Amino acid sequence: MEYFDHEYRVIYADTDRMGVTYYGHYFRFFEAARNEYFRALGLPYTECEKKGLFLPVGEAHAKYIAPSTYDDELIIRTSVSHLGASSIKFQYQVIRKGTDKIITTGDTLHVFVDKTLRPCRIPDEIRQKVKVHTLLRSRKP
Amino acid sequence: MEYFDHEYRVIYADTDRMGVTYYGHYFRFFEAARNEYFRALGLPYTECEKKGLFLPVGEAHAKYIAPSTYDDELIIRTSVSHLGASSIKFQYQVIRKGTDKIITTGDTLHVFVDKTLRPCRIPDEIRQKVKVHTLLRSRKP
Amino acid sequence: MEYFDHEYRVIYADTDRMGVTYYGHYFRFFEAARNEYFRALGLPYTECEKKGLFLPVGEAHAKYIAPSTYDDELIIRTSVSHLGASSIKFQYQVIRKGTDKIITTGDTLHVFVDKTLRPCRIPDEIRQKVKVHTLLRSRKP
Amino acid sequence: MEYFDHEYRVIYADTDRMGVTYYGHYFRFFEAARNEYFRALGLPYTECEKKGLFLPVGEAHAKYIAPSTYDDELIIRTSVSHLGASSIKFQYQVIRKGTDKIITTGDTLHVFVDKTLRPCRIPDEIRQKVKVHTLLRSRKP
Repeated sequence: MEYFDHEYRVIYADTDRMGVTYYGHYFRFFEAARNEYFRALGLPYTECEKKGLFLPVGEAHAKYIAPSTYDDELIIRTSVSHLGASSIKFQYQVIRKGTDKIITTGDTLHVFVDKTLRPCRIPDEIRQKVKVHTLLRSRKP
Repeated sequence: MEYFDHEYRVIYADTDRMGVTYYGHYFRFFEAARNEYFRALGLPYTECEKKGLFLPVGEAHAKYIAPSTYDDELIIRTSVSHLGASSIKFQYQVIRKGTDKIITTGDTLHVFVDKTLRPCRIPDEIRQKVKVHTLLRSRKP
Repeated sequence: MEYFDHEYRVIYADTDRMGVTYYGHYFRFFEAARNEYFRALGLPYTECEKKGLFLPVGEAHAKYIAPSTYDDELIIRTSVSHLGASSIKFQYQVIRKGTDKIITTGDTLHVFVDKTLRPCRIPDEIRQKVKVHTLLRSRKP
Repeated sequence: MEYFDHEYRVIYADTDRMGVTYYGHYFRFFEAARNEYFRALGLPYTECEKKGLFLPVGEAHAKYIAPSTYDDELIIRTSVSHLGASSIKFQYQVIRKGTDKIITTGDTLHVFVDKTLRPCRIPDEIRQKVKVHTLLRSRKP
């Protein structure tokens, strides 16, 4: 799996009085998308947690190219762009559904930690399943 | 203490594309206000938690009379309107600062529970400090 | 259509440090569910807005029966329980998917207003399509 | 003014079931802090809006060094780290109050636009008042 496409429809709660999705809410979208990436891989994050593995966010970044608004259908395309010894980096593209228009890009860096918040090596099971892939800027066909 | 006035200034994140504060966010305001009510009483909620006492919300209600928007200064007036054996009811009035205009009212019902989520009697320390008081609709003097 | 079932999976952002979905976030779930109710009816809310009709929330209520947490799949069952001259009341049941366990109930009251926020009669098109229906507490069949 | 210190106390709504402030909510804190930066400068953002000037976010970034949790008192130290022809960059340090412990850093890049969302030159009034200043990592005295 090179990437996973998670769909989300913007609700009123996501928008602000500028009429568009509030910049901070994209990090919610990113979270939901990486949850589904893991599930699609056969490794739901709840299973990680049961094994005492957690993935706190170390860094987060978003670039806002065009706005989205209420009732827009978004695709949050998610890939793993880097896999270190104990770190994992996700990359996101928010695409307006039915187009190849990328409206927001982003990434989040996570460290695998145990219950005591000590970094730990990424389990082989995850390492074997994850395929590192960098999302390219999509183009008009 | 009959009631406590908590101040909050609305940010963009609180508004939606109708230009006003999103209805669901008032429950954030209520939470912040009851936190400060307890602190003003000398019983910060963190102390309750340290004693193994928790106050999950059983019921929540809000009535929206007039909107608020970005940068509005709000006063969230908070009182305890009922104290049962193990339950406590908070009442809220959201007032536009500098006026006596009530823009939203609400209440939340909570049950004191222990770590196992079993209801437990309200500690005497709390019972002695809390003064049950019903907020009246304020009026021009 | 007596009711519409909207599905939602809880994310980390929805939870709080008690480990469960924050009480205020259920109002987000209710909003998403009533959006989809209207869409299922063939009357997406964006169409209402285009006609200069808005549905601000006048009152909101939730009763929390059991908690939900991260990754739970929820069904938000939504019906219109009352239709007045210019008001509409929605009723919600949040059900843990795959069970008939109702974990939260709620309702929201809305008034149809025009652009100047003046209440206006519910359009016939909506009145004809909406079927007033009261959700019963579901039971094992 | 080199920087402005905005204070905020974390509420339950800000936390997630890991027990700490959800990563996406820091962007709320940043917003509140830059609102107050502008106000301290004598240029509240509402005044910008009245003049038809808006400041959408073009990019946002956060680095999470240590967690914060419920009831923590945070200081969000905010400066303008760059001022272009039509762009402005804010820099943030989230500090645990009463310490010099920086728990999160971040920045946001904004473009001044008019009502038609066209970039426009930063007004002289703002340019004259803003003092570009880079926050240094604070140190134990």
